[in-house]
Amino acid sequence: MNWKRKDLLGLHDLDREEIQYILDTAKSFKEVSTRPVKKVPALRGKTLVNLFFEPSTRTKTSFELAGKRLSADVLNFEVSTSSVSKGETIVDTARNIEAMKVDCFIVRHSSSGAPFIISKAVKAAVINAGDGCHEHPTQALLDLFTVREVFGKISGLKITIIGDIYHSRVARSNIWGFTKLGAKVTVCGPPTLIPAGIEKTNVSVCFSLAEAVKNIDIVYLLRLQKERQQENFFPSQAEYRNFFGFDAKKLCSEKNKFFLMHPGPMNRGLEISTEAAEKENSLILQQVTNGIAVRMAVLYLTVRNIQ
Amino acid sequence: MNWKRKDLLGLHDLDREEIQYILDTAKSFKEVSTRPVKKVPALRGKTLVNLFFEPSTRTKTSFELAGKRLSADVLNFEVSTSSVSKGETIVDTARNIEAMKVDCFIVRHSSSGAPFIISKAVKAAVINAGDGCHEHPTQALLDLFTVREVFGKISGLKITIIGDIYHSRVARSNIWGFTKLGAKVTVCGPPTLIPAGIEKTNVSVCFSLAEAVKNIDIVYLLRLQKERQQENFFPSQAEYRNFFGFDAKKLCSEKNKFFLMHPGPMNRGLEISTEAAEKENSLILQQVTNGIAVRMAVLYLTVRNIQ
Amino acid sequence: MNWKRKDLLGLHDLDREEIQYILDTAKSFKEVSTRPVKKVPALRGKTLVNLFFEPSTRTKTSFELAGKRLSADVLNFEVSTSSVSKGETIVDTARNIEAMKVDCFIVRHSSSGAPFIISKAVKAAVINAGDGCHEHPTQALLDLFTVREVFGKISGLKITIIGDIYHSRVARSNIWGFTKLGAKVTVCGPPTLIPAGIEKTNVSVCFSLAEAVKNIDIVYLLRLQKERQQENFFPSQAEYRNFFGFDAKKLCSEKNKFFLMHPGPMNRGLEISTEAAEKENSLILQQVTNGIAVRMAVLYLTVRNIQ
Repeated sequence: MNWKRKDLLGLHDLDREEIQYILDTAKSFKEVSTRPVKKVPALRGKTLVNLFFEPSTRTKTSFELAGKRLSADVLNFEVSTSSVSKGETIVDTARNIEAMKVDCFIVRHSSSGAPFIISKAVKAAVINAGDGCHEHPTQALLDLFTVREVFGKISGLKITIIGDIYHSRVARSNIWGFTKLGAKVTVCGPPTLIPAGIEKTNVSVCFSLAEAVKNIDIVYLLRLQKERQQENFFPSQAEYRNFFGFDAKKLCSEKNKFFLMHPGPMNRGLEISTEAAEKENSLILQQVTNGIAVRMAVLYLTVRNIQ
Repeated sequence: MNWKRKDLLGLHDLDREEIQYILDTAKSFKEVSTRPVKKVPALRGKTLVNLFFEPSTRTKTSFELAGKRLSADVLNFEVSTSSVSKGETIVDTARNIEAMKVDCFIVRHSSSGAPFIISKAVKAAVINAGDGCHEHPTQALLDLFTVREVFGKISGLKITIIGDIYHSRVARSNIWGFTKLGAKVTVCGPPTLIPAGIEKTNVSVCFSLAEAVKNIDIVYLLRLQKERQQENFFPSQAEYRNFFGFDAKKLCSEKNKFFLMHPGPMNRGLEISTEAAEKENSLILQQVTNGIAVRMAVLYLTVRNIQ
Repeated sequence: MNWKRKDLLGLHDLDREEIQYILDTAKSFKEVSTRPVKKVPALRGKTLVNLFFEPSTRTKTSFELAGKRLSADVLNFEVSTSSVSKGETIVDTARNIEAMKVDCFIVRHSSSGAPFIISKAVKAAVINAGDGCHEHPTQALLDLFTVREVFGKISGLKITIIGDIYHSRVARSNIWGFTKLGAKVTVCGPPTLIPAGIEKTNVSVCFSLAEAVKNIDIVYLLRLQKERQQENFFPSQAEYRNFFGFDAKKLCSEKNKFFLMHPGPMNRGLEISTEAAEKENSLILQQVTNGIAVRMAVLYLTVRNIQ
């Protein structure tokens, strides 16, 4: 297969073959980070820009490292101290940076669709690093990569995503990714945090945590984003923890065996108990490691064709 | 010609030959940013420091990219979180960083003269990246470069600079640059924002926008820096826009043909209408592109001789 | 000798031979920063992370430069905008970054012991860049290096450390370092800022500045950290300056000859007079220069063995 897209804006747009092609490419890059000299010259002399309108050290760092291990120059464009605060539009900002001859924008923004708008305005590649409640495609790709690494396949697996589905771009991208690759997805959370009509995207809905973890292969816990809970979607954090916090003692047993995933950073004692985060069935750090490989693949595939 | 200066503090100090030598050097660097591998080893192993006491992502990024494309190491010295906030003088700060064996300081400061003071205290090269209301020489050099690229010459051209001349280091540097290279400069703005006695620097003054754009080659719009308008230099932003905002519909015609320049970031709907910013006679993005080449030239000429 | 430690957490743990081995290694690296191309490939392809939970531009910059001159990739992990502010523990933060396959953490934290806790949680090397009131080992190592460079030895020298000993990690690390290498250390400051029982660490105590500078080789002035003086350890800054501010006119004479050191940044006019900072017996900038060499040595010794 030949990668033809300029941008990676979401998994909704990709077909099954494209997703698998990214995962296959990532596999070949994973080994680089285990070498004594963790570098390949694939993108030497290319310029990548981390254009983050929302704070995020973790994802930004992962992209920065992925870029540097491909030998690219990576610029962190700090938006808080930037022209944007002087009233410039995001399209003007992007076009101006592009005029410095950059090859790729890695965009995070609190508004859904911002990376799409930028992608239409520039010839550089645009990678969505999380936009509003819309998509976070590289997170879902690294999750898919991790599951494929552990199980050898994705098709036929059963995965339950637990938490605030309503506000979660991670959930949306994972739903697209896992269903396209043939997994069976269930979402679980308080009714107020499950979008109406989500069944149309081929997922099942379950409101009981105890039910949701039965006979499945993977439990995917979402981070409870406290900053998005202004509107009383649930009575209190204690209430949330009691009903939807993942407690290994209650939920893991000889009968209930599954792997645990989380996009990080964890709220220990809220959506996940400390024991759960430390159990050997946790894939959380493996997810982080695979983030580098997946982002190297995405950067490589999109940037190498930019003129 | 042989470049002999340690620093670039302003265009006021340079003679015509020195300015042209920088522009010629920039021309040879411009091509680097169009290569697949956008790098030359000219300053490999040299250390450049972005020492910005005022926020600026755009200029800082331009210098950072210019440095990296010359293969130098570029450090961003963040002043808000730095020792300066602990009461250290700028000379102590600069001497301390210099003791780490750095080769060049790129200095922005809200006070006129700060780069000059630092240049006297250190052996490293000092590039003024904008100081108070004094000078912003690399901005003017990239403007000169762009005009020479478009017209093939500068001598004999007619340019009008519009806006807050009083507070503008961009205007000052451009006045020195364009007049030294033989262009005819007019400034236009509200009387309160035109410095008294500016005619002595060989420029004409005009208070009517409609007059100021007649029979000229270039209109150079300054950014209205809202943060510098504390003292009621004009009644309101609406008033400013009505009298001095550039409106393409009113001002561009078959009879009035000229190129439009702006140092960015633009206040669309204030000093420039959205249509004007998008018109094909706008050189705004070309200015940004040339900023890299000009800064590569300045860094190369000053730093290569530092011991 | 063969360096075997994974981490550098403090000078308390090191024996005399280990300290001297670091200083010898630093000596061989010092020359690198005087070359036209200030780079060696010693740590090419390694990833170092500046993990600073407390603001510090100076030390961070010194480590960043040291890393880059060893050809490593250096990431600045900005904690204020990071997941830590979302409630993540420092161990989770460190493990997550380590999962991206980094080789070294350079840690600064306001709590004593934070680097130790991180070092137990990760396989990467951990360098303490200052933790609470505990230790700042690379500062003491660069001070030792500077003294050895000037005097050709450390054993037998007499050094007085002046200022807020109580809150100073610089003082603690220097006390361990200088006494282990055979120097005679005196501390001097207001009684409220001298820890009770400090004599047990083999140092003398003196409450009179005039006495403390008699017949010694080095005066080491600590920075008065105004942010740590919430509890009225002394009546006022003027009072402090009058009794413990170093005034060259009063204290330096033909009879009183010594070298002056300070970890920076200086409060001129508080713990040090401006004339003192500028006198030819000041080693302050030499300390900064040696900071690069010492940090290159520490990074090299710890990181090269990380798998």
